[in-house]
Amino acid sequence: MKLTILGCYAATPRTFTNPTSQILEIKNRLFLIDCGEGTQVQLRKNKIRFSKINHIFISHLHGDHFFGLVGLVSTFTLLNRATDLHIYGPKGIKEIIMLQLRLSNSWTNYGLHFHELESSETQVIYEDEKVIVKTIPLKHRVYTNGFLFQEKIDKRKLNVAAVESFEIDSCYYQNIKNGKDIVLEDGRLIENHKLTFDPIPPKNYAFCSDTAYDERIIPLLNDVDVLYHESTFLQSEENLAKRTLHSTAKEAATIALKANVKQLVLGHYSTRYENIKLFKEEAQTIFSQVLLADDGKSFDF
Amino acid sequence: MKLTILGCYAATPRTFTNPTSQILEIKNRLFLIDCGEGTQVQLRKNKIRFSKINHIFISHLHGDHFFGLVGLVSTFTLLNRATDLHIYGPKGIKEIIMLQLRLSNSWTNYGLHFHELESSETQVIYEDEKVIVKTIPLKHRVYTNGFLFQEKIDKRKLNVAAVESFEIDSCYYQNIKNGKDIVLEDGRLIENHKLTFDPIPPKNYAFCSDTAYDERIIPLLNDVDVLYHESTFLQSEENLAKRTLHSTAKEAATIALKANVKQLVLGHYSTRYENIKLFKEEAQTIFSQVLLADDGKSFDF
Repeated sequence: MKLTILGCYAATPRTFTNPTSQILEIKNRLFLIDCGEGTQVQLRKNKIRFSKINHIFISHLHGDHFFGLVGLVSTFTLLNRATDLHIYGPKGIKEIIMLQLRLSNSWTNYGLHFHELESSETQVIYEDEKVIVKTIPLKHRVYTNGFLFQEKIDKRKLNVAAVESFEIDSCYYQNIKNGKDIVLEDGRLIENHKLTFDPIPPKNYAFCSDTAYDERIIPLLNDVDVLYHESTFLQSEENLAKRTLHSTAKEAATIALKANVKQLVLGHYSTRYENIKLFKEEAQTIFSQVLLADDGKSFDF
Repeated sequence: MKLTILGCYAATPRTFTNPTSQILEIKNRLFLIDCGEGTQVQLRKNKIRFSKINHIFISHLHGDHFFGLVGLVSTFTLLNRATDLHIYGPKGIKEIIMLQLRLSNSWTNYGLHFHELESSETQVIYEDEKVIVKTIPLKHRVYTNGFLFQEKIDKRKLNVAAVESFEIDSCYYQNIKNGKDIVLEDGRLIENHKLTFDPIPPKNYAFCSDTAYDERIIPLLNDVDVLYHESTFLQSEENLAKRTLHSTAKEAATIALKANVKQLVLGHYSTRYENIKLFKEEAQTIFSQVLLADDGKSFDF
């Protein structure tokens, strides 16, 4: 599982910082999460192949999280994209994109599918044989979702030496990987755990931006491997965070602690701060496993 | 008169090139012309003060000419802009911007005025005591206007030595600058040209992008000081230019020649070409006074 930060600063794009956008590579799928202005240039700079992006998840309709979407949708057309593109985001996102395509008389030459969200409860919005994506309802000034990306549990790994020692025919291997016990021709029952190894534990990633401090999300985040939680402000701006329904670094760390996550990644820094290391220092007073997102940074988990 | 190119490449923003946007400084006013994605970052890189922009002219609703507008409008709010902003562009531009502001629940805290255009005839869309702006109807795949920025003729300059030699009272100076003759107390008529110098000749700038080769615009461009005319393609892609209603460098130069402009600036290059010098070489086979626009380049005229 690999996370590439295309942009992780709040509010407006600047010469050297970009609004929110990130690429999650999970089980060989590329998911684009949020799409602030300039995302397509950030994709190029980070050498992400446009054609590998088939699913885009938009947390909410504040500009720093989606103003780059319409440009990316248009660029896909210019690149002669053929495969379908799926966009998951708040109700209204389809109207925004389609209005601009209609007025520019520039339709896409690929299938463009909108999956508009309006539920205030968590829901499964994407599922295939290896990955499942659920919403994490967040508390912000407009309707907002975080997203929980979960790998499904892999099949068990065949213990080749064991199956060969029992002279088991290879036609049974799929059953064994699926967890079945085996009855040999002589009638002996061989339990599955003697023929297989545990699969690699599935990983998961939770993206929570933008949000006020909200303990209601903790059950959804329990034990996740990596939590990206916004920390727009430091504790010194606690009141501003409350008023704007954002979080401080300390609050993000508190959520990480209470949800018992393995790793916290901070981001969505207000551009008022010159030194983002302060976010890490503050969060680590609560929770030790803290990483700082920054534009162009990649994390392998 | 100073022209700063923020972006002058066609189609999509790339790592080192930007879609169309430029700043015209004329008579101490700053006009923003087109606003492709990334314009606000280009404004910062070129040290243009956001607060000095009060009028934005959008040629047409293809994304590479306006996808940066909604972000700029939002950033003005974050910067606590107080003065009114005027946007001139095709009908529909108001709906696009207002829909996005409405869905993000982020209204502007300054006056936002849209001047929607739908006429296929040239019209005056801006006028103050020193500058006048007219549309130049262009021929493209969607409704498109170029813009003609004209300085008004200044008042005549007072010839201080002359007025003093005739012992004319200073209360008549305004009349003299306005071109009036003067009758002295002894009855003598002094003609205005003996009391004044000619004013600095007014300058004008025509922006024509995007457009097919179209001789109908020539009367509007006659004798302009500077013509920015799109040259998306070289003559080798003449058929592609025809099909997409764009121009070649040679065609842009032909318009410049026939309109007897003083200076041609080429831009809106297709990103298929690695060497933009070819555009200048091709244009100069027709018209000698050719400059190449490039991102971040400024021209003083």
